Amino acid sequence: MAVETVRVKNTGLRGVAIADTKISYIDGEHGVLIYRGYRIEELAERSSFMETAFLLLNSHLPSEAELERFERQFAQSRDVPGFILDALEKVPVQADPMDVLQACIPMLAMSDPEINDESREADVRKSIRLIARVPAVVAAWHRIRNGEKPLAPDNSLPHAANFLWQLSGKKPPAEIAHDLDVCLILHADHTFNASTFACREVVSTKAHMYAGVAAGVGALSGSLHGGANERVMKMLLEIESEIESAEEIGAWVKDRIESGKKIYGMGHAVYKTVDPRSKILKQMAQRLAEKTGHEKWYEYLTRVEKKSLSEFAARGKSEISTNVDFYSGVVYAMMGIPIDIMTPIFATSRISGWCAHVIEEKFAEAQEKPALYRPEAEYVGHYCGVIGCTYEPMEARE
Amino acid sequence: MAVETVRVKNTGLRGVAIADTKISYIDGEHGVLIYRGYRIEELAERSSFMETAFLLLNSHLPSEAELERFERQFAQSRDVPGFILDALEKVPVQADPMDVLQACIPMLAMSDPEINDESREADVRKSIRLIARVPAVVAAWHRIRNGEKPLAPDNSLPHAANFLWQLSGKKPPAEIAHDLDVCLILHADHTFNASTFACREVVSTKAHMYAGVAAGVGALSGSLHGGANERVMKMLLEIESEIESAEEIGAWVKDRIESGKKIYGMGHAVYKTVDPRSKILKQMAQRLAEKTGHEKWYEYLTRVEKKSLSEFAARGKSEISTNVDFYSGVVYAMMGIPIDIMTPIFATSRISGWCAHVIEEKFAEAQEKPALYRPEAEYVGHYCGVIGCTYEPMEARE
Repeated sequence: MAVETVRVKNTGLRGVAIADTKISYIDGEHGVLIYRGYRIEELAERSSFMETAFLLLNSHLPSEAELERFERQFAQSRDVPGFILDALEKVPVQADPMDVLQACIPMLAMSDPEINDESREADVRKSIRLIARVPAVVAAWHRIRNGEKPLAPDNSLPHAANFLWQLSGKKPPAEIAHDLDVCLILHADHTFNASTFACREVVSTKAHMYAGVAAGVGALSGSLHGGANERVMKMLLEIESEIESAEEIGAWVKDRIESGKKIYGMGHAVYKTVDPRSKILKQMAQRLAEKTGHEKWYEYLTRVEKKSLSEFAARGKSEISTNVDFYSGVVYAMMGIPIDIMTPIFATSRISGWCAHVIEEKFAEAQEKPALYRPEAEYVGHYCGVIGCTYEPMEARE
Repeated sequence: MAVETVRVKNTGLRGVAIADTKISYIDGEHGVLIYRGYRIEELAERSSFMETAFLLLNSHLPSEAELERFERQFAQSRDVPGFILDALEKVPVQADPMDVLQACIPMLAMSDPEINDESREADVRKSIRLIARVPAVVAAWHRIRNGEKPLAPDNSLPHAANFLWQLSGKKPPAEIAHDLDVCLILHADHTFNASTFACREVVSTKAHMYAGVAAGVGALSGSLHGGANERVMKMLLEIESEIESAEEIGAWVKDRIESGKKIYGMGHAVYKTVDPRSKILKQMAQRLAEKTGHEKWYEYLTRVEKKSLSEFAARGKSEISTNVDFYSGVVYAMMGIPIDIMTPIFATSRISGWCAHVIEEKFAEAQEKPALYRPEAEYVGHYCGVIGCTYEPMEARE
């Protein structure tokens, strides 16, 4: 079949529908995010990350028996294989945690007993192992780089609480653990974002799930994607070091926008109004600020938000709002999480969406099945026709 | 700006031009492949992989001084950092070499002294380190899994010859080394194939080059992409074990096609005629067969080719031809390369194209600059409107 070339150059495929999905849905006009039919606000308030991960993988909320079984599978999967811990002992302590995580994903593939079983059922079990082990690897690396021994999981704790335990060696207060669990729900999926698309793209070649997930980790590490929460936090610390009182923030923001620099955590490719996740995180940040004595951070950020929005509006860009990254960094910081572990926490959540999308990519019904991604590019380079340019011998070259 | 949604669902973006490129060009109708203006046949005959890698990275063929400097940079970059070799000692010996390679790419990032320098010049130097070290890592792993010590590079040897030395511990005959060098030229780039697109997609988030290249390795590992050469070789060994004489191949092929199974190494998303790389590899296979006493393999494969093409033609599919993978596996096998090192050799070559594309993606001029890849998907899942489905408490669930 001769296909007309469609030209969507340099748009990053914005507005190009490339596949069907049953996993999540964004209504960018109304600021609505839905996982498998359920609104994110409802899940954040009433569900748990375990339940949400089950929902993403299995398309329905679990019964009590299903959730128990799911949690049992997690409890059996949280141990990081010994050879990976041995290998991590060899890694330079200054290594970026996202590089470490990306290196560990194919190592987890090597230890998966079902790596050669390409059935849907086996891929769901691989997903459980990945969702269980990504935070375990992040925590283990953080301990190792600080010269401490990785901690065994405490499977009596909920998922997020256990992560904080494995990371810090302290059992977190229940409220902090619950807040982190909500953060994991909020970041779990977001349709065809850059990292999820990278996962899907890689497995479209029939590469295994881990090969795809490693690509997702790579994409998430970029500062335009998962790295943005860290940049917001660094921006906040920069403000804190540069000004003497909150009153100066308005001028700081104005200066920054006028000098053409970015206010991180603002604007989104899909939302044309406030990101529903940002609203929940803002409330959480306010609550945590009071609890942990970080009222100043919260006040500073809300002032940055207010001034930025009015500056953008004055420039005719009233559609720009805070996105998920604007308050998530400060929330993690209030929980005592180091800046360079913030994007790995994003991965700890998004791994659930990545796995659900890998399974959808691989096992969609035939008529809905996407093909291997192989786009076109338009050649605009050096050209001497199809006979090719003359290959000059070396001595004749300029 | 309100953009109309373009629908190209489940086509794998076939026929969708997503960016400009100056790196390579395929004329699928005429079976022409061009790198930076030069035809692949010309480069295979007259150039070297070093020179081709320089061409891909720098857009022009090198002068003598430029090539000398480039080779000197390679000589300084071939050593695998000690901590990576230490980590590889911990990896289970049965690990897939492509998983090992994918794990090593972010580890190479950790050891790159310029990892935080995001300039174009630094990225070219990172590319040289990557092109030098990918084969070194592959060879080191092969030695380690066989209980042997990795070998130091012999920088007096040409690039491909040194790889065979580091892999096998034997200095290869000059003709074999030259043939492998030609294979590296042939596989170096191929516009927006799935692995290259994965690299570009990941760095479009401003992730670093290594994060993108690890995604490329993942995509290449898929059996629809780089894994295909291994599958052709396995198919050939299967034929060898199942038949008694070459006369039976016609029936074997017919049976296989009639039972709906695939003949590996046939057909291509882009070429509508014979892949120009396949022609060169076929001649090489014939020459190597005589030299190494593998005439039977060559005869079997040419018979598979002939019969397959006539069967496809009889089914109205006369556009199907052999692709690059059909003769490359057998060529590597005749060189004594193990089956599971064949896709890593593909990576050893394609790393040059991946790096060139990463640089193009990151440093294209503003008006040609692609944005972060963030396609759309159409939601066809469970839906209760934007108010969301009712969250049933657990006891009320089925």
